[in-house]
Amino acid sequence: MIDILSNDQIEEVLKKHFVGRIGCHNDDDIYVVPVSYAYDGKYVYVRSFEGKKVDMMRKNPKICFEVDETENMANWKSVIAWGEFEELTDKTERNKALKILIDRHLPLMSSGTTHLGDIWPFPPEDLSTIKGVVWRILLKEKTGRFEKSEASPSLTG
Amino acid sequence: MIDILSNDQIEEVLKKHFVGRIGCHNDDDIYVVPVSYAYDGKYVYVRSFEGKKVDMMRKNPKICFEVDETENMANWKSVIAWGEFEELTDKTERNKALKILIDRHLPLMSSGTTHLGDIWPFPPEDLSTIKGVVWRILLKEKTGRFEKSEASPSLTG
Repeated sequence: MIDILSNDQIEEVLKKHFVGRIGCHNDDDIYVVPVSYAYDGKYVYVRSFEGKKVDMMRKNPKICFEVDETENMANWKSVIAWGEFEELTDKTERNKALKILIDRHLPLMSSGTTHLGDIWPFPPEDLSTIKGVVWRILLKEKTGRFEKSEASPSLTG
Repeated sequence: MIDILSNDQIEEVLKKHFVGRIGCHNDDDIYVVPVSYAYDGKYVYVRSFEGKKVDMMRKNPKICFEVDETENMANWKSVIAWGEFEELTDKTERNKALKILIDRHLPLMSSGTTHLGDIWPFPPEDLSTIKGVVWRILLKEKTGRFEKSEASPSLTG
């Protein structure tokens, strides 16, 4: 049966993963887009380029953030949260966010490639040389669900 | 670099996966939620229970549907589509959709469990005994992006 994740389990899912989906809407337009993120227990940090999602969130900062993991159709977890977009333009705040992102993503880059430097230049000697829009989502409400099934004989066996 | 998926590649991603995310909105509320689905090249079929997402889509059927796959941060694909929610209440249409869902999901259930029958009873002798709300999304616009990186020495090596 489907059950509710505890607060600790919700935090665990948010910290474990690095890809989530932002849902934003503006007037009659809705957009769901995957982002790579870092989560510090309060904010979801993202670096991206100018584009549809940033345009929409500047107009309407109220967003939904979703992370899920599926082992199979009977064993999965999902976290759905609501929060508010905040663009980080102040240099100190922007650099702090980039440091959080680098610390989270650099270890995931062990299979990284040279051209990756085009979009995520690291290790950066000067964080302010990193291009793009740096923003964070203050998560204000979080929910989580899961389904876990005991092992049992295969239905097709 | 990030590039655009062709129409064929978009179809391939939609057909390959069975978990996507529906984004729906109504007034000031936005909701992104994972669903298990089946795709027949035109519609995304879903069976779910009554709840927030169905309530919201009945009020505003215009939704966004998202599927992504991430091998690592430099190798990923994503499809974002827009479409319209349609509840299938006509028995023939509902059974047809359930058949599509069963044909897609049953093979994925090889690690299925007995209690799974509580939420997804199969193989059903009579499709009309399957409870829940059956609906589909007519995909009207689809976009896809990907990033693919050649193997290269590890940055940490």
